Amino acid sequence: MKRVDWGVCAPKGFKAYGVNCGIRKNKTKKDLSLIYSSVQADAAAVFTTNLVKGAPLLVTKEHLKDGKAQAIICNSGNANTCNANGIEIAEETSKLIATALNIDESNVIVGSTGVIGQPMSIEPFKKGIPDLVAGLTEEGSQDAALGIMTTDTKLKEIALEFEIDGKTCHIGGIAKGSGMIHPNMATMLVYITSDVNIDSKLLQKALSDTVADTFNMISVDGDTSTNDTVAIMANGLAGNKRIEEENEDYNIFQNALNELMVYLCRKIAKDGEGATKLLECKVSGAETKDIAKVVAKSVICSSLVKAAMFGADANWGRILCAIGYSGAKVDVTKVDVYFKSSKGTIEVCKDGAGVDFSEEKAKEILLEDEIEILVSLNSGNGSATAYGCDLTYDYVKINGDYRT
Amino acid sequence: MKRVDWGVCAPKGFKAYGVNCGIRKNKTKKDLSLIYSSVQADAAAVFTTNLVKGAPLLVTKEHLKDGKAQAIICNSGNANTCNANGIEIAEETSKLIATALNIDESNVIVGSTGVIGQPMSIEPFKKGIPDLVAGLTEEGSQDAALGIMTTDTKLKEIALEFEIDGKTCHIGGIAKGSGMIHPNMATMLVYITSDVNIDSKLLQKALSDTVADTFNMISVDGDTSTNDTVAIMANGLAGNKRIEEENEDYNIFQNALNELMVYLCRKIAKDGEGATKLLECKVSGAETKDIAKVVAKSVICSSLVKAAMFGADANWGRILCAIGYSGAKVDVTKVDVYFKSSKGTIEVCKDGAGVDFSEEKAKEILLEDEIEILVSLNSGNGSATAYGCDLTYDYVKINGDYRT
Repeated sequence: MKRVDWGVCAPKGFKAYGVNCGIRKNKTKKDLSLIYSSVQADAAAVFTTNLVKGAPLLVTKEHLKDGKAQAIICNSGNANTCNANGIEIAEETSKLIATALNIDESNVIVGSTGVIGQPMSIEPFKKGIPDLVAGLTEEGSQDAALGIMTTDTKLKEIALEFEIDGKTCHIGGIAKGSGMIHPNMATMLVYITSDVNIDSKLLQKALSDTVADTFNMISVDGDTSTNDTVAIMANGLAGNKRIEEENEDYNIFQNALNELMVYLCRKIAKDGEGATKLLECKVSGAETKDIAKVVAKSVICSSLVKAAMFGADANWGRILCAIGYSGAKVDVTKVDVYFKSSKGTIEVCKDGAGVDFSEEKAKEILLEDEIEILVSLNSGNGSATAYGCDLTYDYVKINGDYRT
Repeated sequence: MKRVDWGVCAPKGFKAYGVNCGIRKNKTKKDLSLIYSSVQADAAAVFTTNLVKGAPLLVTKEHLKDGKAQAIICNSGNANTCNANGIEIAEETSKLIATALNIDESNVIVGSTGVIGQPMSIEPFKKGIPDLVAGLTEEGSQDAALGIMTTDTKLKEIALEFEIDGKTCHIGGIAKGSGMIHPNMATMLVYITSDVNIDSKLLQKALSDTVADTFNMISVDGDTSTNDTVAIMANGLAGNKRIEEENEDYNIFQNALNELMVYLCRKIAKDGEGATKLLECKVSGAETKDIAKVVAKSVICSSLVKAAMFGADANWGRILCAIGYSGAKVDVTKVDVYFKSSKGTIEVCKDGAGVDFSEEKAKEILLEDEIEILVSLNSGNGSATAYGCDLTYDYVKINGDYRT
């Protein structure tokens, strides 16, 4: 697996671009993005489980019934959710871009992110779409990534190269997500492209399986968004024998997808609203994988653990506490806890009780900006990783007045 | 129902006191409290559901098997949880105070609150208990309330007077709780006294039923503590006919208990770590009461809603979002949302979509320090209230370095 440039445009046949079309007041910030495949692609997506769903998700679900897509259009600055005219706007957007690209509107994936419950107009789309289509380029992945960002401070993009069936294949992705991040069957916006030739049913399976272990294991603030979407288009231009069963080729593809998702997960968690640190809780020795997942997520979601990590305070009792209320079946007298970073590893809890440790060394480890919380349950072979960030003054600042 | 003075000492036969015995470094802060009934009382308690449980809870559970108690002793500054010698310390504490009071150690309720996983010594107890017992007074409720406080900024105490069976009865309570507040079958520490004559089984039922609608509906930070305890002693000195069934007298007692608990709930939530505002989410029109409870608690737990309230930002979309991911069965197209405070009431969402409202008026309402979020689900008659607070810079500050 090789890391390569050009994000969602690394796979053959994909172009992308992003513009400011006027949805945002700030004209220097791009707010409309497009990803386009020169040929129709197999496509799949997973969406939020929130009962309140953004209108674009409902329209996209309809469009993906046949497992095919050719373009992804997404705006930032307005979530197009809880609007009276939401469906109308999402459908009209699909029509406008389909006409401009000369494709069928049912081949359009549409997305939105921003404030919920704000009135929305089609005018900015009408104004922006001609420029968006004219600007499409194989170097446009970063522009597209910029156009979907909201409170994100870092651009999130990756591309990988690998081989299937003797053919060079690619997979590329862009993502946004910083607040309202606690995905359930999906995360904020992640758009993935690939030139692998794969049937849309297997594409959906690979996507859903990988999301369960990656994006669904992130939490910034415990709030599951109304607009979470992970969508993928695979256009087959790599020329590999079409993947139609869970064979070796499928495994190679899923491995690539997993590597891409873990990369984007860490990027999203580290760029959580106000965050200064990436936290990864790695749970091992659980009776089952599900128990490991519940425990890891409970630790990563604890406001008290998150605040302690902000303060580089080795307050491991809060980790035990979060394990205890997770709801998972755990023998708390067998739990060991370690903190780890590039500065080393330190044991702070053994068999559910504190051990003597150097507070100085712990501080040194926790002052780093990527922290691993290692939890051994010593009860089996299940393991899982959850991704989160610290809780900081800036999280409160950003969210105390997000709308103005 | 009449509000009266003297907290846990308002009921006949109760004395209390609090001292500094040296568990805390700060010698001006009391850290050991005692509540004592001159006669053996019927007693009941509910405890945290966290699998990690403080040693004092395990000892208290054992002591309450016979439904009788005569004294409550509780320290702050150390949670006596995840300690190798926790049970030993809690048992030794019971013995010391039982000897000093000349009662049976099985009649002692013991509690602890503070940092988890810190070594603990019996020495401060040995030193403090003589002063504690010598100081017992009918005016000592506030001293006891001070001795159990940790990051609390406000003393939490109440007493009520009412009549059962022609006799004047009392119920009094003290509470502490500011962080790690998300009770499940109990809350941080709440100690209640009464002179009502009631069988311990009915006392337990009244306690458990009322806790489910009050303390279990508070959340400051989503973290369920390891030491949550609500304990009650009713010594019968009011002289009413002993309550042995769920009759009219039982209802009067439960009403008094409910009023006391709602008062303490609001106090705890408003004094949440770093909080500037009390938030009450009142959900009505739910298909069932359980749905109303799940929805109310989801709203009150949302970091994004809490941060918006800190900023007095009428960002109601976050409330819809929290309703949507609550897991409760809700028709989101029927949801109405209002904000209410002493400055008035404003509708912000009707039938799941935004309505035009004055941002200026909304700001005026939300700048108050007690905010009601009213949610009408328009699907039935179930209702519930959840209690919480805003998320502020100070929450992060307090918890970024709690131990030092």
